Amino acid sequence: MIDYLRDAAEIYARSFATIEEEAELDHLPEALRPVAVRMIHACGMVDLAADILGTADVVGAAQAALAAGAPVLCDCEMVRAALIRSLFPRDAELIVTLNAHGVPELARALGTTRSAAAVELWRDRLAGAVILIGNAPTALFHLFEMLEAGAPHPAAIIAAPVGFVGAAESKVLLARNALAIPFLTVRGRRGGSAIAAAALNAIAKGMAR
Amino acid sequence: MIDYLRDAAEIYARSFATIEEEAELDHLPEALRPVAVRMIHACGMVDLAADILGTADVVGAAQAALAAGAPVLCDCEMVRAALIRSLFPRDAELIVTLNAHGVPELARALGTTRSAAAVELWRDRLAGAVILIGNAPTALFHLFEMLEAGAPHPAAIIAAPVGFVGAAESKVLLARNALAIPFLTVRGRRGGSAIAAAALNAIAKGMAR
Repeated sequence: MIDYLRDAAEIYARSFATIEEEAELDHLPEALRPVAVRMIHACGMVDLAADILGTADVVGAAQAALAAGAPVLCDCEMVRAALIRSLFPRDAELIVTLNAHGVPELARALGTTRSAAAVELWRDRLAGAVILIGNAPTALFHLFEMLEAGAPHPAAIIAAPVGFVGAAESKVLLARNALAIPFLTVRGRRGGSAIAAAALNAIAKGMAR
Repeated sequence: MIDYLRDAAEIYARSFATIEEEAELDHLPEALRPVAVRMIHACGMVDLAADILGTADVVGAAQAALAAGAPVLCDCEMVRAALIRSLFPRDAELIVTLNAHGVPELARALGTTRSAAAVELWRDRLAGAVILIGNAPTALFHLFEMLEAGAPHPAAIIAAPVGFVGAAESKVLLARNALAIPFLTVRGRRGGSAIAAAALNAIAKGMAR
């Protein structure tokens, strides 16, 4: 018999205690601290805290949107798979358009990636939605192009695209917050679906029931 | 119009060029280097390279298993969602038992987590399988308990559980390689489904067609 902790609740409790002890969260608005703890939990890196950046109102804005029946618009299957369904309102739609019919053709027609073309299919659901981007910088860039061209504003943008080309840059654009949409992000190359979904899971968990 | 790279092939090429330039991969067996590049690509961290550890034969062992029709046994939906289906043999089964019927009851009966109990359901498929663990340390611990008790050996173990309780310890056990099963892992707290799946995607991509 190997000696290890087998109690899920105790594993969570010790994990969060370690994070609270090691992570520097003081620079974050108070509403974002429990969210940051979950983001750190998802990646095993307490120094992620220094790169977490968001508006204090993103938690309330996303919660209000979800309570009002807004969909969650996800950039990839993986980020949807990481959402804990039971934390969300029963009727909440968790939408991924990446593998929708016609996306490869649309990407070719627009001269862009499939991830960006898939965002084009969000247009009719954008107003008041919760955006969740865990993978593709081009999805975030394309969203900004649509918004700057007059598309309806979502209620909140939670975006942590990851990688070496465009990820950091797309998140700088988000952090500039020129459109005054509540947001949450991770600066730099780091990010990913686990971190993005953990943030939204934490926000959903905090909803009044 | 925002200025960013929109060509998917070019985004990949520049990402991999950046990784090749910045990451120190010399300590890895040659067969593992392209796999490590994909793992780094998935998380945006070139310093992950120093924590990647595996046997030189894990690539060939996993490829031979997949070619022979072995299933991939995944610890969570997220790691399966990150697998690129088209890279795998058409009939390859990508199996997740975490949400199978009876797992919560089994977890209670065994006094362990749902992730560990779900591994119990792998038993009939273990022989020659490819194991893919992206989330739960207790899944890896439980797998070891089953193997030490005489369960059939899988062909390869790719495991990068993440977090603050048990992740590092479970991977130390894997790296000790007492059972001489080809493996690939990431030392320490870091890991996750994106990194684990990226490794297996890279391995599948390298298969002779």
